[in-house]
Amino acid sequence: MRTQIRLNEADMPRQWYNLAADLPVPPQPPLGPDGKPVSPDMLRAIFPDALIEQEMSTRRWIDIPREVLEILAKWRPSPLHRALSLEKYLNTPAKIYYKNESVSPGGSHKLNTAVAQAWYNKQAGVKHLTTETGAGQWGCALAFAGAQLGLDVTVFMVRVSFDQKPYRKMMMQVWGADCIASPSERTRAGREVLAKTPDTPGSLGIAISEAVEAAISDPTKSTRYSLGSVLNHVMLHQTIIGLETKKQLALVGVDKPDVVIGCAGGGSNFAGISFPFVHDKIGGADIRIIPVEPSSCPTLTKGPFLYDLGDFSGMTPLLPMYTLGHTFVPAPIHAGGLRYHGMAPLVSQATRLGLMEPLAVGQTECFTSALAFARTEGIIVAPETSHAVAAAIREANRAREEGKEKVILFNLSGHGIIDLKGYDMFMKGELTDYELPVEEIEKNLKSLKDFPKPAPLPV
Amino acid sequence: MRTQIRLNEADMPRQWYNLAADLPVPPQPPLGPDGKPVSPDMLRAIFPDALIEQEMSTRRWIDIPREVLEILAKWRPSPLHRALSLEKYLNTPAKIYYKNESVSPGGSHKLNTAVAQAWYNKQAGVKHLTTETGAGQWGCALAFAGAQLGLDVTVFMVRVSFDQKPYRKMMMQVWGADCIASPSERTRAGREVLAKTPDTPGSLGIAISEAVEAAISDPTKSTRYSLGSVLNHVMLHQTIIGLETKKQLALVGVDKPDVVIGCAGGGSNFAGISFPFVHDKIGGADIRIIPVEPSSCPTLTKGPFLYDLGDFSGMTPLLPMYTLGHTFVPAPIHAGGLRYHGMAPLVSQATRLGLMEPLAVGQTECFTSALAFARTEGIIVAPETSHAVAAAIREANRAREEGKEKVILFNLSGHGIIDLKGYDMFMKGELTDYELPVEEIEKNLKSLKDFPKPAPLPV
Repeated sequence: MRTQIRLNEADMPRQWYNLAADLPVPPQPPLGPDGKPVSPDMLRAIFPDALIEQEMSTRRWIDIPREVLEILAKWRPSPLHRALSLEKYLNTPAKIYYKNESVSPGGSHKLNTAVAQAWYNKQAGVKHLTTETGAGQWGCALAFAGAQLGLDVTVFMVRVSFDQKPYRKMMMQVWGADCIASPSERTRAGREVLAKTPDTPGSLGIAISEAVEAAISDPTKSTRYSLGSVLNHVMLHQTIIGLETKKQLALVGVDKPDVVIGCAGGGSNFAGISFPFVHDKIGGADIRIIPVEPSSCPTLTKGPFLYDLGDFSGMTPLLPMYTLGHTFVPAPIHAGGLRYHGMAPLVSQATRLGLMEPLAVGQTECFTSALAFARTEGIIVAPETSHAVAAAIREANRAREEGKEKVILFNLSGHGIIDLKGYDMFMKGELTDYELPVEEIEKNLKSLKDFPKPAPLPV
Repeated sequence: MRTQIRLNEADMPRQWYNLAADLPVPPQPPLGPDGKPVSPDMLRAIFPDALIEQEMSTRRWIDIPREVLEILAKWRPSPLHRALSLEKYLNTPAKIYYKNESVSPGGSHKLNTAVAQAWYNKQAGVKHLTTETGAGQWGCALAFAGAQLGLDVTVFMVRVSFDQKPYRKMMMQVWGADCIASPSERTRAGREVLAKTPDTPGSLGIAISEAVEAAISDPTKSTRYSLGSVLNHVMLHQTIIGLETKKQLALVGVDKPDVVIGCAGGGSNFAGISFPFVHDKIGGADIRIIPVEPSSCPTLTKGPFLYDLGDFSGMTPLLPMYTLGHTFVPAPIHAGGLRYHGMAPLVSQATRLGLMEPLAVGQTECFTSALAFARTEGIIVAPETSHAVAAAIREANRAREEGKEKVILFNLSGHGIIDLKGYDMFMKGELTDYELPVEEIEKNLKSLKDFPKPAPLPV
């Protein structure tokens, strides 16, 4: 029985898969402040042409540049594991597989798109990238990519994480990046927030505003902004995860998984593992696809589908997505990477079309599941990833109850060994669950009332 | 050009290699308090028979139990990488390969022997293992192994590390181990130290005393003690590293490396990568083999070869080894795992026989090298491992100067992402080098004056 299913470098996918080519109803375009679709021209201040083209593309397959593949080959193809120990512990007839993105130098899937984005920026003559980061995974990923490709990187890190996670900051510095607590004094957006609420823990929305402002205000015009999730081109770059997984499942004779699971904050690791299987589902395959979010930030399960800003202060276009409102500040749970008010438009559209079965789980169930996983499979997963583990365990338990031998696949998006504080608090009984009240959502959605509304789906 | 050279589970070595079978002059035996060779009987209170047998064995090949292989297969075979980016950065004609042991769930090579030791103990009916840990890598490894095999694990962690490295303690707890600051109230040894010096930071010597006492004083006789380095059976279990590497080098047509490098504290990761190549060197192959130690703890480069205690307080037999004296307290450098006064008897004997070329390097050169490695190869190595990186870079630079295309191999024994404090201090310019003065060594060696002396080598 094989514990790890490996591919060789020669088996790496040579193209990314673009779900926009296959959705039965395509996503609506992002809108500018005037309510009209955003043109490529409007995006040029923050992104290079090649990424804008990918953002708007409906081509099904897009070539991965050779040099990007060479850098990814430092840790890819990532292993697919059969969770034999967990299956035994759960006494389930289900076969559980997990794709292990924690083997990257940054410890998560985020490097897949960081390398691609840095490469396209470099080709366009960009010298400096700015970005925001929540828990720190994305900032580390871009710092890594900057070091690989010789670009300067500035990371605005949400203050609560900056203070709680000094190791992430140090990782970015080891890779040569500049890491700043957000809100900061470096930008007007940051200064305005600090003036009103000097003690704010910060939020991803605020940090995005700062990073975009820092990019567009560079007088030499050689700075661009990089986003670690949400956008179409980010989802695209992550599909290498699911494409590799398909080859690996084929190697052990698995025709298709019955359930595909990923945790979902902005949506990128979830898109990465699932989109190649969404392709099959659209083609008729019987596959359940489950994005898992925290019950304290239940975008897909409790938010409406609306046009909303991607950030707090309106630096981004309006995106058609499930949202809790861009003014929403999620509870400070330990899965910082899932504390985002919106959801990738492609994931949102697929959900709206009934292709997804979103699930919200509380953090105590997540940590209980992560602890069981660590003691059986051995890997200490990131608090974000624990949401996927919790859903996988639920499915495995259901398989036992139903006596069904199904194949469960989930994405192990990252390890948690610099996020152990959450485990520690959980083991000490200091963590509680937080169910976001409907009134709180309604309150935040008021700020969207003057935005254009997405068109209803055709009947 | 292949960046990673991978093996499949089916290619895992099925036997460990025992260097004791091949050394031209065998190592002398450990001695008891009476000056006579330690008998198996004397070791039975702390180790199971199978490990005692391995400790004394001169068989060349020893079978790896199937269940041990199954657990190791969760991350093994570990990848061998070609350091193409580093080579380019150094502009060297040398080919640099590194074996990546950082991919284990604990982040280091220590798990290789932890799993084996836990398994043999379990076969012998042992329910509970005790050990000590300094920086925490070994405690984590044994905690992992205990979780995998259903054994209780108690780790006595040197208080200063317990307080400074909470993440390591949390990792042990996630894997279900009991982690106690040493000295503790749990043992007589601990209570005695606390009575005299309640504020002591603790030491590895005291922690060993506590762990051994906790094992031998269990009234149910179902507790044993486990050691993470120094002993012959630990070296044996680590040879899977070098054996895999040989197969991987063969896959890319490398007949033999010209230089093999590993950092050396107690000697286990160094033995793991090098012993299978020492076998070839004894057989006539032209291979230079370099153990690298900190200039602040230069056991092999400045210590004499003598009989000395393995610990501070005399719980262990006398071991024939290079030593700085068991009373030596190394400077508090960041490579905590290399702060050991002695060296594994097998590594010591091979060095004494001229099979090794030991090297001592200061920590600023090590961190400079580690930073270059992180920014080229992408991996943030452990401060211990940075010593191997520094030596590899020296060799690569020499190859450039000499215009020679040689093959350099080193062991990347662990990652440093929970040891980033050292990098942080280095980047802030807060680290200095410390060259251990000869007088300091001479002072410590006085405590060995009444111990038996090793026999000289035959002429």
